[in-house]
Amino acid sequence: MFLNQMPRYEILSADAMATLDRGWRRIVSEIGVEFMSPRALELFRRAGMKVEENNVFFDPEFVLEQVAKAPREFDVQARNPANTVRIGGDHMAFGAVYGAPFVREGDVRRDATLDDFHRFCKLSQVFGEMDSAGGVVCEPNDAPLDSRHLDMVYALQTLTDKVYMGNVVSGPNAADTVAMTRILLGDIETTPATISLINCNSPLRWDDRMLDAQFEYSAANQPVVLTPFLLMGAMSPVSVPATLVQQIAEALTGIALSQLIRPGCPVIFGSFLSNIDMQSGSPCFGTPESAVGLLCTGQIARRFGLPWRSGGALTSSQTTDAQAGYEALMTMLPTFLAGANWVMHAAGWLEGGLVSGFEKFVMDVEILRMLQHEFTPMEITEESLAFDAHAEVGHGGHFLGAAHTMERFRTCFYRPLLSSSDNYERWMRRGAKDAAARAADVYQAKLQEYELPPLDDAIREELRDYVTRRRRELGDA
Amino acid sequence: MFLNQMPRYEILSADAMATLDRGWRRIVSEIGVEFMSPRALELFRRAGMKVEENNVFFDPEFVLEQVAKAPREFDVQARNPANTVRIGGDHMAFGAVYGAPFVREGDVRRDATLDDFHRFCKLSQVFGEMDSAGGVVCEPNDAPLDSRHLDMVYALQTLTDKVYMGNVVSGPNAADTVAMTRILLGDIETTPATISLINCNSPLRWDDRMLDAQFEYSAANQPVVLTPFLLMGAMSPVSVPATLVQQIAEALTGIALSQLIRPGCPVIFGSFLSNIDMQSGSPCFGTPESAVGLLCTGQIARRFGLPWRSGGALTSSQTTDAQAGYEALMTMLPTFLAGANWVMHAAGWLEGGLVSGFEKFVMDVEILRMLQHEFTPMEITEESLAFDAHAEVGHGGHFLGAAHTMERFRTCFYRPLLSSSDNYERWMRRGAKDAAARAADVYQAKLQEYELPPLDDAIREELRDYVTRRRRELGDA
Repeated sequence: MFLNQMPRYEILSADAMATLDRGWRRIVSEIGVEFMSPRALELFRRAGMKVEENNVFFDPEFVLEQVAKAPREFDVQARNPANTVRIGGDHMAFGAVYGAPFVREGDVRRDATLDDFHRFCKLSQVFGEMDSAGGVVCEPNDAPLDSRHLDMVYALQTLTDKVYMGNVVSGPNAADTVAMTRILLGDIETTPATISLINCNSPLRWDDRMLDAQFEYSAANQPVVLTPFLLMGAMSPVSVPATLVQQIAEALTGIALSQLIRPGCPVIFGSFLSNIDMQSGSPCFGTPESAVGLLCTGQIARRFGLPWRSGGALTSSQTTDAQAGYEALMTMLPTFLAGANWVMHAAGWLEGGLVSGFEKFVMDVEILRMLQHEFTPMEITEESLAFDAHAEVGHGGHFLGAAHTMERFRTCFYRPLLSSSDNYERWMRRGAKDAAARAADVYQAKLQEYELPPLDDAIREELRDYVTRRRRELGDA
Repeated sequence: MFLNQMPRYEILSADAMATLDRGWRRIVSEIGVEFMSPRALELFRRAGMKVEENNVFFDPEFVLEQVAKAPREFDVQARNPANTVRIGGDHMAFGAVYGAPFVREGDVRRDATLDDFHRFCKLSQVFGEMDSAGGVVCEPNDAPLDSRHLDMVYALQTLTDKVYMGNVVSGPNAADTVAMTRILLGDIETTPATISLINCNSPLRWDDRMLDAQFEYSAANQPVVLTPFLLMGAMSPVSVPATLVQQIAEALTGIALSQLIRPGCPVIFGSFLSNIDMQSGSPCFGTPESAVGLLCTGQIARRFGLPWRSGGALTSSQTTDAQAGYEALMTMLPTFLAGANWVMHAAGWLEGGLVSGFEKFVMDVEILRMLQHEFTPMEITEESLAFDAHAEVGHGGHFLGAAHTMERFRTCFYRPLLSSSDNYERWMRRGAKDAAARAADVYQAKLQEYELPPLDDAIREELRDYVTRRRRELGDA
């Protein structure tokens, strides 16, 4: 997996950090955070916090004590041990788009299906840069609603041999994910095996269904990503600093709950921070504000000693056009500068997250590959200066045939997956295809390359039986 | 103009810097640098350097002594004083694409004309984010060859009231630029008024025509951008460190020449560093290698106390597609991270610099605006935390109508020029236009908004007379 050993780009001064620190302490202690779960409220009450109805008023020191119990780094095992990921430190893991009800292929935008879900799983498997297909890589609208999570988990488990995300629609869905993960891997408590996204109903409220899922996962020692969902102007004030303190208040109190459920269980400080267009109310992605928020969030998460999630190839664009290109990189480059540990939506996100795009997936993998290359430190040694090449070529010549070049030409530079540097005549001969059209060729070819990763027949059978039984119990059979 | 007060992203360790330092010293002293100009050779000989044929073997300490004479910062005056730029320090100035023989509008790619040149001048004038139209914003192929530089300088002087770049095709062309600039502004020696690009014929050779232009400009105290032209694999070794030391050797020796011509004259450390595709030989832009080179170059130029030029919205893409979007930002974001002072090609570059694109120009201005917004430090104060807004909205509500929001909604976030966050239905109703199609609408509207900046009739007349006389003398009348 990718290790980011380049420097972090940090923009918060010590004074700024102290101001933010005062801010979240004031929010959690004076305004409090709502937890719509009697179990959660009972845990906080027993821990000595003041609870009024659903609202918990926190002692900030208590929050920090709980946060300190969380591991700084941990592994998440994949069924193929080569694909096990480490979360935290310099490690960066990348998963596909999550949660889109629609898909786009070329000019066609339509409801996503289970077949689309399968194809995105295959693309996530076949691209080595992807550590995970994520979870709800698109919504399989043609699968029965109440048992759809079983179809998704089964697909993630069988079509890929990488780590995957668990379902969070309800506590029972989470329990199904945990049960199926145990079938796949046996012991999953020593080393966890699925990551789940617990979103806050921002501002300052954690909802019951998400909390029920959190209880299941944290109790089973499976990591949860506690994520304030912050579109500034709607779910948080129209100010990056105000949003950062709200984000800290929400994330840390969610993390504190996990540590009460099971002290020492793995958690991830989550961030999903952008803004709305103040004229239309539409969410905007790849904005300057979101990039600044991302850089700050990395610095903040490190201050609390927590692995963190943010970033992705986000865009508001409807198609894989120029806007999709620059907006995706407006988020992904800061994702690397800030060293996010768990990067959801790293490939395929379109239209503010409403659409999983096949061409977009390929474009995003290209960006991911480029950034992984860029954020791998180069060696600067006497030998790297290639003095002999300069002595050989001298003045006004060229290095095309130099010995130094001949020894290295195959591997010396990044080789693109999608980008074209064809001259105009050659580009015309090859059909004058723009990047989106070429991306369509790439994903179709990649789907042809896909091979089903081997899985023990008995395990596959047991998973199938589980899905069949549970589907029947859920009334979807 | 834009001040970049965010931190610089520096990736070279002290050890790495010391290795690079040994590298350029060895090149200039053991291999030497060619200057294809008897005047230049004579200056170096008289300064005590060893000269063999056209090659100068340098004492690195002598080079550093000359470099130390150059100003760290300086102004370049525009005829509208509000558009005067400062070069150096935290200042960043942005000019349009330079040197393309072709233009692209929509699906049409064709030879550039003087009318295209005029339209790009107007776009550079009308967008406040642009500090300069640059110089050869496209090649006016329908203007007579020998006097074309007069048409370009006249257009830059009259259609814009911003700083502009001088012609460098020959010494006489440079002298024409200086003469016309004196007509426009009178005294241009106290504060220079035109910037010119002197490219190295890399590796390690400065050619006669460029040097003749350099003599004219430096003698007149007009800044020159001494720019190694480095496509790794062709003009430099297939190694970033080797290319960086070559770049230092070339830039510093060119700068040393300017300081011998006129001690203390303004210079800019230039960088144009990317790589070729090792299979096709085509130049590639927006590559990971070029981004790393850019970050290192900023650190290196600062070490020598020199203002520097690099960056731009570079791409190999043929059209304003997704590749153009992400490649442009792959260079422009590092341009800001590294704090380049003079940014050529900041808008309009397509197809490896062969094409000036109208839609691309608009896309690049959008990127420029976003980055200027992103690299303006936010204030983190108690007030910015908007505690009252949190107290007002509480738990699970929204901030759309909060007092804090209502007071700030007009200016709180970046407002895009081009990017769309329309929902799907609205986007379809508005014609389902991708970013390139919308960019075409934007530049056409902006050309309508353009107003000719006022200029004293006598000066305009004198400029016209100069152009007419010189065109006759050059045999193009």
